[in-house]
Amino acid sequence: MSKVGFIGTGIMGFPMAQHLQKAGHELFVSEHRSAARPELLEAGATALPTIKAVTEAADIIIIMVPDTPDVEAVLFADDGVAAGLSAGKLVIDMSTVSPLETKAFAQKINALGCDYLDAPVSGGEVGAQNATLTIMVGGPQTAFDKALPLFEVMGGNVTLIGDNGDGQTCKVANNIVVALNIEAVSEALVFAAKTGADPEKVREALMGGFASSKVLEVHGERMLKRTFEPGFRIRLHQKDLNLALDGAREMGIALPNTASTQELFNVCAAKGGKDWDHSALIKALETMSDFEIG
Amino acid sequence: MSKVGFIGTGIMGFPMAQHLQKAGHELFVSEHRSAARPELLEAGATALPTIKAVTEAADIIIIMVPDTPDVEAVLFADDGVAAGLSAGKLVIDMSTVSPLETKAFAQKINALGCDYLDAPVSGGEVGAQNATLTIMVGGPQTAFDKALPLFEVMGGNVTLIGDNGDGQTCKVANNIVVALNIEAVSEALVFAAKTGADPEKVREALMGGFASSKVLEVHGERMLKRTFEPGFRIRLHQKDLNLALDGAREMGIALPNTASTQELFNVCAAKGGKDWDHSALIKALETMSDFEIG
Repeated sequence: MSKVGFIGTGIMGFPMAQHLQKAGHELFVSEHRSAARPELLEAGATALPTIKAVTEAADIIIIMVPDTPDVEAVLFADDGVAAGLSAGKLVIDMSTVSPLETKAFAQKINALGCDYLDAPVSGGEVGAQNATLTIMVGGPQTAFDKALPLFEVMGGNVTLIGDNGDGQTCKVANNIVVALNIEAVSEALVFAAKTGADPEKVREALMGGFASSKVLEVHGERMLKRTFEPGFRIRLHQKDLNLALDGAREMGIALPNTASTQELFNVCAAKGGKDWDHSALIKALETMSDFEIG
Repeated sequence: MSKVGFIGTGIMGFPMAQHLQKAGHELFVSEHRSAARPELLEAGATALPTIKAVTEAADIIIIMVPDTPDVEAVLFADDGVAAGLSAGKLVIDMSTVSPLETKAFAQKINALGCDYLDAPVSGGEVGAQNATLTIMVGGPQTAFDKALPLFEVMGGNVTLIGDNGDGQTCKVANNIVVALNIEAVSEALVFAAKTGADPEKVREALMGGFASSKVLEVHGERMLKRTFEPGFRIRLHQKDLNLALDGAREMGIALPNTASTQELFNVCAAKGGKDWDHSALIKALETMSDFEIG
């Protein structure tokens, strides 16, 4: 059993931390921003005043915060992780953040004699609660082996993709495909319905062939049933597409459909839909075409 | 067993006609453009000088030609199908053509006392040869029931989508999704490889979650192995996206990613790739980014 510091016990991090506790790991949480969750304390977690103090008390430090600047602050602010590290500890960032920044973060942590893993997850709140998260990991094999028992407590599908940054890269690639597949199904269903075909029959027929996808199955049904409660919120998918587009600009590659799909999410946002499920992307096309498939 | 007139015994139509013959149907083919295939004649097909004569001899007339104007010519030119029809016959267009034009074709054929089915296929040359085509049908239930024994000889997955035109609409919707899913996988793999991750590992990890699709499985592997022999030729997929974009303009709906994906196919065409497999779409992104994933 490990001594685990857990930074970021929000919607995702809270159930993940609970799974670690239930598996017998000793948990340390920080009260630098707000009081610790009483459920965690009641189950034996130790609350400490700073991230630095949590890092000093733990052997493995897990970070689960919203965005790249948040991870940077947790790692390198005064009283942050770096200030409390000593050689041989392991830092695991499970947030979804910039692959390029992640490589730099890892180098700085390595310079302190510690291993770093980027291990973003997909599967959302439900996956976190049910411990069925997909975990995409970047970093050294030895560090991965050390972390694997923790990952297996939190998720169901754990893959070491490659070196540091590659976990984040895989997550961004995943969310490019999901967004663009949602956009593809949206265009197809709007075309079909406007032409007069029954979009439900069309979706069924398409499921049998080369157009079949998890998105056609799950999000296609949401579009037809008009169930746009999240799910995965448009504002979060926009954050991930922004990682793709920022990275593309920095590296000099062209992602034309990621760019246009981000704009279509902006159309949803303009309609008050930042917290709609990402399958509501179809409403952007419907709005632009003054037509609804349902 | 039926008397079947088969117009268009090319790469797709030839094996389809052979399957009908083998199942015991009597075949009539036209020599209005070129001599009949000797294999068909040897197996008992009757060659006649015009499409009109074929239509007069047959009870069911199947059309399998490249594009909308070809179908129109087969149907309505002098000595074409309409000139030879008498009440009670059935016309089945298995070409992939405009859904909107198809509705008009069907009305004209109906006015002659005959049923019309649009029944485009997917599955390509291999599907035609192995009789595993997916067949998407539009038209009246009674006509569908009459044609079903023929469809089942030529394909494996036969669905009545709805009224005339809806089969073609479904095919266009299918090919929108396939093209845009290919583009999505292309963007994800280019992003992943350029960021330094192993695109093969990324594809594997993505297959386990919400990004999974038939395209990621089959075309993703083609992109990694650089096997771009057709398969389904870019020039044919461009024809189908053109049906989508023409229809969209006519009906006043916006298909932004279909439009940009058509442009990316143009980039492939500019590189001499009209006859590459459609998975070679990734080469457009690679060309634009001066980078290759392999």
